[in-house]
Amino acid sequence: MPILNKDMQFCISLAGRPSNLGTRFHNFLYDELGLNFAYKAFTTDDIEGAVRGIRALGLRGCSVSMPFKEAVIPLIDVIEPSAAAIESVNTIVNDGGVLTGSNTDFEAIAQLIADNELDPSLRVLVRGSGGMAKAVVAAFRDAGFDDVTVLARNASLGPALAEQYGYAWIADDPAPGSAELIVNVTPLGMQGADASALAFSDEHIAAASVVFDVVAFPAETPLILAARAAGKTVITGAEVHALQAARQFERYTGMSITPEQIARAAAFSRLPAVE
Amino acid sequence: MPILNKDMQFCISLAGRPSNLGTRFHNFLYDELGLNFAYKAFTTDDIEGAVRGIRALGLRGCSVSMPFKEAVIPLIDVIEPSAAAIESVNTIVNDGGVLTGSNTDFEAIAQLIADNELDPSLRVLVRGSGGMAKAVVAAFRDAGFDDVTVLARNASLGPALAEQYGYAWIADDPAPGSAELIVNVTPLGMQGADASALAFSDEHIAAASVVFDVVAFPAETPLILAARAAGKTVITGAEVHALQAARQFERYTGMSITPEQIARAAAFSRLPAVE
Repeated sequence: MPILNKDMQFCISLAGRPSNLGTRFHNFLYDELGLNFAYKAFTTDDIEGAVRGIRALGLRGCSVSMPFKEAVIPLIDVIEPSAAAIESVNTIVNDGGVLTGSNTDFEAIAQLIADNELDPSLRVLVRGSGGMAKAVVAAFRDAGFDDVTVLARNASLGPALAEQYGYAWIADDPAPGSAELIVNVTPLGMQGADASALAFSDEHIAAASVVFDVVAFPAETPLILAARAAGKTVITGAEVHALQAARQFERYTGMSITPEQIARAAAFSRLPAVE
Repeated sequence: MPILNKDMQFCISLAGRPSNLGTRFHNFLYDELGLNFAYKAFTTDDIEGAVRGIRALGLRGCSVSMPFKEAVIPLIDVIEPSAAAIESVNTIVNDGGVLTGSNTDFEAIAQLIADNELDPSLRVLVRGSGGMAKAVVAAFRDAGFDDVTVLARNASLGPALAEQYGYAWIADDPAPGSAELIVNVTPLGMQGADASALAFSDEHIAAASVVFDVVAFPAETPLILAARAAGKTVITGAEVHALQAARQFERYTGMSITPEQIARAAAFSRLPAVE
């Protein structure tokens, strides 16, 4: 990485619990493509002040993670359809003081549904009811899926999410086995306290033809490992993360990148950090 | 420079017209000492929003240049004596949300007066009446100089500055030749429109024993070149910049650095930037 300089365009991320994935993904491609850009993850306890700082310092862009994806909406100027549809912004681009919000998670999930040629007649079970679950459910709705069930303990968010998109809600799944496409959008399997948790039962996995886990780190969650062992088609959170970061990269820089470049940046982003 | 990471402590500068001097000075030493720090110059048209951004993003420090040195005072929490004395802050350190302002320009000038063993009985002529001139005049006052004259066309700032420190003011200098120590604190000789301007007449230079130019870029201003050619003792703005940056570095990182490290960082900061 070249030494920083005053003319460098600077992008940041804001997350309650920052990781190095985005910082490494973006800086890798800036370096590979010789762009005068830099990117660094931050956290904040003052999202309004942080967005004001983006404006005041002329930062080029900002990736927005939990718990700020809804809170930034009233603080920015333009909301793209990808973010308006799910009332969730994960990307802010600053064009000369005009802040535009979009949601590249939603775009990435839609692209993965298309790239994997998932059949809209599949019976889908989505576990989770948070902001990312909304992006997933909305993407299935847009892709023409009719038989989607939201599985969520939260008796407020769960039915609200299902109802918004005309789907069913269940609080638990006593008779597993009917879903052909199962999607985990909870933290189960994520690095940390939930690392060893399996988001779906063995029966769910056995009955499904496709297993989709949105957890980005690690890529190989217990659910993904079990699905691979059972010979299922898998879609990983690492793919979601790389694709959504690629869409951010394109917005920040105005450049298009190839699947090979995305793959290289994603691989680099997951290497153990070298100090 | 290593790739950026989420845990890196981030320092910035805010200037109306940013340069790469500080960015290169600080990053060079972070790299040489293996510190997980990074530094980048910014500008702003919203100094209040920028300082709020420093707080919201948890930035470690901020170098403050013209025209923000007075404007930041009401925006921060603690003012050190070096800044309070001259009502000018060039350095902000963020300790867990408490912003402390200091003035390392003032400290650097005081140190250069001491290091060069400048005799307090010398007759001093200071040209300029802006914020930096105040730092210079205050440093001479603190060092015990009694015979200082402020030379400034500005008939408001010039006499006010002189009077505050008990010195004389003149709007021009029709009979040059009496000052033994001449100090330029105007932009004359600075890269840009004033690059070829000589801040003092040949007669001033001939009569002086010490020539001090606060212009930092280039280091070899027309005044410094003429003084060197005439065999005078010279003190350059490059020395002021390096010393003040060193004092900032120590505040940001909590580490002390040697004169050799300062010299290496200063030399690197003045290399033509390699893209």
